[in-house]
Amino acid sequence: MSDQPLVRPVPVGGFPEWLPHVRLVELRWLDRIRAAFERYGFCSIETPSVERMEVLVAKGETSKEVYALGRAQGEEEGQLGLHFDLTVPLARYAAQHFNELVFPFKRYQVQRVWRGERPQDGRFREFTQCDLDVINVDDVPLHFDAELPRIVHEVLTSLDLPAWTINVNNRKVLQGFYEGLGIADPVDVIRAVDKIDKIGADGVAGLLADRLEPGQVDAVLELARLRDVEAVRRLGVRSALLDEGLAELDFVLRELSDLPEVVVDFSIARGLDYYTGTVYEGKFADWPEYGAICSGGRYDDLAGSFIRRRLPGVGMSIGFSRIFAKMLSAGLLGTGPSTPADVLVVLPKDRRQVATGTAKALRDRGFNVELYHQEDKVAKQVRYASRKGVPFVWFPPFEDGRPHEVKDLATGEQTAVDPATWSRGRD
Amino acid sequence: MSDQPLVRPVPVGGFPEWLPHVRLVELRWLDRIRAAFERYGFCSIETPSVERMEVLVAKGETSKEVYALGRAQGEEEGQLGLHFDLTVPLARYAAQHFNELVFPFKRYQVQRVWRGERPQDGRFREFTQCDLDVINVDDVPLHFDAELPRIVHEVLTSLDLPAWTINVNNRKVLQGFYEGLGIADPVDVIRAVDKIDKIGADGVAGLLADRLEPGQVDAVLELARLRDVEAVRRLGVRSALLDEGLAELDFVLRELSDLPEVVVDFSIARGLDYYTGTVYEGKFADWPEYGAICSGGRYDDLAGSFIRRRLPGVGMSIGFSRIFAKMLSAGLLGTGPSTPADVLVVLPKDRRQVATGTAKALRDRGFNVELYHQEDKVAKQVRYASRKGVPFVWFPPFEDGRPHEVKDLATGEQTAVDPATWSRGRD
Repeated sequence: MSDQPLVRPVPVGGFPEWLPHVRLVELRWLDRIRAAFERYGFCSIETPSVERMEVLVAKGETSKEVYALGRAQGEEEGQLGLHFDLTVPLARYAAQHFNELVFPFKRYQVQRVWRGERPQDGRFREFTQCDLDVINVDDVPLHFDAELPRIVHEVLTSLDLPAWTINVNNRKVLQGFYEGLGIADPVDVIRAVDKIDKIGADGVAGLLADRLEPGQVDAVLELARLRDVEAVRRLGVRSALLDEGLAELDFVLRELSDLPEVVVDFSIARGLDYYTGTVYEGKFADWPEYGAICSGGRYDDLAGSFIRRRLPGVGMSIGFSRIFAKMLSAGLLGTGPSTPADVLVVLPKDRRQVATGTAKALRDRGFNVELYHQEDKVAKQVRYASRKGVPFVWFPPFEDGRPHEVKDLATGEQTAVDPATWSRGRD
Repeated sequence: MSDQPLVRPVPVGGFPEWLPHVRLVELRWLDRIRAAFERYGFCSIETPSVERMEVLVAKGETSKEVYALGRAQGEEEGQLGLHFDLTVPLARYAAQHFNELVFPFKRYQVQRVWRGERPQDGRFREFTQCDLDVINVDDVPLHFDAELPRIVHEVLTSLDLPAWTINVNNRKVLQGFYEGLGIADPVDVIRAVDKIDKIGADGVAGLLADRLEPGQVDAVLELARLRDVEAVRRLGVRSALLDEGLAELDFVLRELSDLPEVVVDFSIARGLDYYTGTVYEGKFADWPEYGAICSGGRYDDLAGSFIRRRLPGVGMSIGFSRIFAKMLSAGLLGTGPSTPADVLVVLPKDRRQVATGTAKALRDRGFNVELYHQEDKVAKQVRYASRKGVPFVWFPPFEDGRPHEVKDLATGEQTAVDPATWSRGRD
């Protein structure tokens, strides 16, 4: 040890890390998400953490959120930046590998992304997103507008979260309805309605007051209150685009009618300009102000900045870190042990070979096994297992001719067992 | 589609990405690695991709390889950098969470790391490392010096690689032997011997010629040629440190005597100054010049820059990306399908509900299932499955009362089946 002044090991704001027992739950979550994605035949891709800066800003995103990389050998300063989402990398990937992919290209991507924002509740600078997209050449079957929320529903269900909904809408309904009302700039109104969660209906009315007739404002807000396709039809507003949007929405809702958590919500607009049809937004029922736990929608063209082929798609993104951090801070994670071990094998005095053989036999049968690391007193070895949360302590025979024994630390029960046949039982 | 000039979607040198069929193999590899680590009870941790710059350089590493992050809101330029290995983050983590960890702390960490080096064969700027370390307060049982290479052996075996070895040595043997020869600066000699792979024995002799007596040089090179502990003892050089090192090495080799790929190699030095006992270096038998596929060793103190407790440890790192890229470029990966799907369910005309129900029944039984996305001609649907490498195509009954059928695309065989009992068979 040196006497040099210490560098204090403090956390960096916005860059979370977890202790082992929390990480173990995170891994379990990630496993379930991957399993759900693959159950529907989506393939995994990963892209580099960095893209060239011109790729990152090709869609006109503001560059202040992008972390640029400092100079490395042979590179100009600021040529590369860390990706801030998984959509831009997907667009670049699809364009770059266009001739090697089979379309419709159904991919999932679970990776860290970075944003140089000021950290706040639920917002990190480095976080994990789980994205699910289907892209195709020229057109994407409506089939996928219904399949994606079904998969995300399966994911969210598997995570044992408190009540949530996936709210669905269709941009054509909003735009068609506003056009039917005679509104000249529907996109402008969509942008205002998108703020309804934050500023309320009165706030939106205030934003629209100087642009629309009072009757139009009332109708816009009336639509945002509705939760039922037929009720929209009953309002009597007519436009071809509205009919098209309602038909699409009807299909999606009918396909998902077995899932009570999927609801239609005409206040969902998703501010991003590139959504053109179905849009999604998932929320916690009891924490609506926490913002979206998943979101997405249909877009007319993904990779127009990179390739002269039209690649429309539909996608959803699960805000993994947002959800996980919320569960952690709300004390709802139900964390357990800090090790994946099922069993700790005790190392008895002068019986190293017996203990090693026992650990090997159990590992060969698929158990995760820690072999204790030195000939400490048995009580100390058991205490170590208990502190790590290893559920079972295994005692190899301390003398030849005696049986193996295993102690269940939850019940305190200790029984004679055979390493060739033992099972955890309670599983 | 706009008429704007395109941003060309070209790869960034040193930042690899894979097509879906390659990524599928990569995922399988990562699963096997994780399973092996967990089978021995090691817990997973992940740390942020960035550390404060003062943490990254605390060990005196050169800073030119570090990618610094550009300014983000509320931050000074260059305060943060991407980690260049997983050892510095582990040291910071152990110090920061010292009071919350159970020691010996046995962790594995599979993450991307970044180095701003000039890209070359087997060297990337972003790559994945798989690290396995045990750290403890004040001392680490020799037990782990043998356990780590056993785990890594299990990992490498599971990856079906061409022949490799894990070469083991002990720094105390080198240092003790050189001291026994009367050499004043053994560390200096270790640094020279470490280059033997690159410059050969003659090159090392040249480096040492002006510092050592000819007899000393001969003895140093003689030791480097040996592959057997007893042969070293027979050389008759004596020092307490040498005896200690040979005893440690004896223990490790005895514990691993069932693994023919683990060999003693007195030419292994590992240049890093912080190794103090056992050292490891894995190599491909047929590509020794490709460099280490895994490496590691025992260190006296890990986190001395961050905490006033002595935390010695022993660790190994698997160069995941190096190995994977080599297998890929050598054509040895054996890649297959570009989707995890076991089955493609055909969507017959006007029978959407039947097809959806079939897909669900198969998914509920644990299969990965793609449901085809529109009512295309059946031949087109089969062709899609074939192009993606889906092994089975499932035909739900095209009329009521007829049976399900499944076609094995590998054999062309098509048979009547029951979705409640069907299995892949060939697995």
